Amino acid sequence: MHTLIKKPVAFQGAHYAFSEMAARQFFGNEIDSLPCRTFEEVFETVVQDIAEFGVLPIENSLTGSIHRNYDLLIDYDVKIVAETVLRIAQNLITNPGVSLSDINTIYSHPQALEQCRRFISSMEGVEAVATYDTAGSVKMIRDEKIMDAAAVASRWAAEDYGMQILKEEIEDYPHNFTRFIVIGSKEKVLGSADKTSIVFSMKSIPGALFKCLSVFALRDIDLLKIESRPMRGKPFSYIFYLSFAASMQEQSSINAIRHLEEITDFVKILGSYPSGQLDL
Amino acid sequence: MHTLIKKPVAFQGAHYAFSEMAARQFFGNEIDSLPCRTFEEVFETVVQDIAEFGVLPIENSLTGSIHRNYDLLIDYDVKIVAETVLRIAQNLITNPGVSLSDINTIYSHPQALEQCRRFISSMEGVEAVATYDTAGSVKMIRDEKIMDAAAVASRWAAEDYGMQILKEEIEDYPHNFTRFIVIGSKEKVLGSADKTSIVFSMKSIPGALFKCLSVFALRDIDLLKIESRPMRGKPFSYIFYLSFAASMQEQSSINAIRHLEEITDFVKILGSYPSGQLDL
Repeated sequence: MHTLIKKPVAFQGAHYAFSEMAARQFFGNEIDSLPCRTFEEVFETVVQDIAEFGVLPIENSLTGSIHRNYDLLIDYDVKIVAETVLRIAQNLITNPGVSLSDINTIYSHPQALEQCRRFISSMEGVEAVATYDTAGSVKMIRDEKIMDAAAVASRWAAEDYGMQILKEEIEDYPHNFTRFIVIGSKEKVLGSADKTSIVFSMKSIPGALFKCLSVFALRDIDLLKIESRPMRGKPFSYIFYLSFAASMQEQSSINAIRHLEEITDFVKILGSYPSGQLDL
Repeated sequence: MHTLIKKPVAFQGAHYAFSEMAARQFFGNEIDSLPCRTFEEVFETVVQDIAEFGVLPIENSLTGSIHRNYDLLIDYDVKIVAETVLRIAQNLITNPGVSLSDINTIYSHPQALEQCRRFISSMEGVEAVATYDTAGSVKMIRDEKIMDAAAVASRWAAEDYGMQILKEEIEDYPHNFTRFIVIGSKEKVLGSADKTSIVFSMKSIPGALFKCLSVFALRDIDLLKIESRPMRGKPFSYIFYLSFAASMQEQSSINAIRHLEEITDFVKILGSYPSGQLDL
C-alpha cells in the first residue's frame, strides 16, 4: 500500500526527529522525508502538494494533546488519513569499544537529558552537557572519536551512525508513547476506516455536553476519546476533540453528526481512518 | 491569607522556573521556595510536611494536560487546594546599554530558543547557542559582561539580575498559558471552594460516559473540563479527568459523586478549591 508514494512525507523537526521515525515506522524506510521548521510548514507542503502526506504528533502519553496541531487541523483543508503510535525511547550511545566506566561526559538535548535524569544522576562523577540536538551529539562523538563520552539519542540515530548502544531505554518513565497522525488531501485513502475524529464547539450551558454525547450514545456509537478545552478569547465557550469507533461511510455516523450539528456552534470532521494501536 | 505560610512552597525545577514564578504569583514574593528535581519530590515534600504546599503544572494551552501529575495526584494522599494560571512569555535580555544591532549570539535553553524561532530567525547573522537553562544564560552574560550577546528568559530573571529587557514577548505563539495547581495536605484551605476536580475510570462500553455525565446533567452541575485517556496496560479501559463548577460542600455534589460511584470502577476526588482564571 505504502510503496506508491511518489512525493516526500513532511514532518516537523530535523532528521532523526521522532516525527521522522513515526513516518518511517508507518510508511517504511524507502520514503523520502521532508523536514519542516514548523507544524504550519507541514500543513502547507501537504496543501500545496509538495508533500504527499504529513506526519504530526497529536498526543503524548505523559504530556497530553498537542493543541497546536488540533488548531491547524481546523484551519487547513486537509484530513487525517491514518495514525501511528511510536514509543519514545532514549538510549546511551557511544563509540564501539567504550564501556560504562570510561564515560565522563554525556551529551544531548536538554529535554532528552531531563527525560533520563535518574539514570544520569546514578552515574557518579559524570557531567551532562547540553547540545542542540540528540542525533547531532551522536555524530559529534563519532566524528571527533571521543572515547570518554556518550550521547543520549534514539536507537535509529545510533544504528545509522554505526555507533554502539551501551544501554537501552534509559528514560525515567518508560511508558512514553506519542500518537502521530498522517494528514493528506481529501482524496487520499490509506486502508479501511473504522475511526473518525471530529472537533466541535459550543457555549458552556449545563447539560450541553451531555446532549452532544447523547447523539452517539443513542446510536450505540462507541467513543474513543473526548477532551474539552476552553476557547481562547471566548469566556465560557469550549472546543471539544472527540473520536468515535465508526467511519463516516456508515449511516449511523452521518445521522449522529447531523444531530450534533443541530445542537452545537461548529463541527468539523477531521477524517475517518484506520485506527492504529489503541492504547497510547 | 498567604502570609501565614511558615514552611517553604515546593516546585519542580531550578530557581526561576515557571513553576517558581507561579508559586510567587499565587503566594507572593516573600515565600521561601523549595526547588525539587522531580514532580514526585514535590509530592513527597508535601506529604512529609517539609513543604507547606507544592505548585505543579497541570495543563498548558499549547501542549495539553500533564498526565504525569494527574497520575501522582491519584497515587499520593494530598489534595488540590488552589489553582493559578501563568502566562509563559519569553524576553530578549541583555546587559544595559546593548542594542539590537550589537547582538551576534543568543543564549538560552533549546526549548526557549525553539519557542522564539521566528523572532530569532528574523535577526540576520545571529547565532542561537543552546545552554542548560534560561536564567543561567542571563547570569552568564551579566557575570562575563558580554556586550554582543543576549539571553532568552523570563521577565523575572531579567529583573532579579538587573538586566535590560530589549524586547518583550518574543515567543512565536503568544497564547501560551500554563495552569498550575497548588497541592496541600487534606486539612489545608485557601479560600472559598467553587470548583471540584475528580478522576474516575471505567470500562469502555457504549454509552458509559454518557451515563457518567448524566449524574452531573441531572443535577444541573456545570462541567468545566472533561478529558479521557486510555489506561495503560488495560485495553478498552479509560481514565477520565473531570472538573465541575461546585464544591464538595454542596449536597448536589455529594449526591452526584455517590451516583457516579455506582456506575464506575474508581473515583477519586482530587480537591474542591477556588477557581483561578477560567480561560487557559
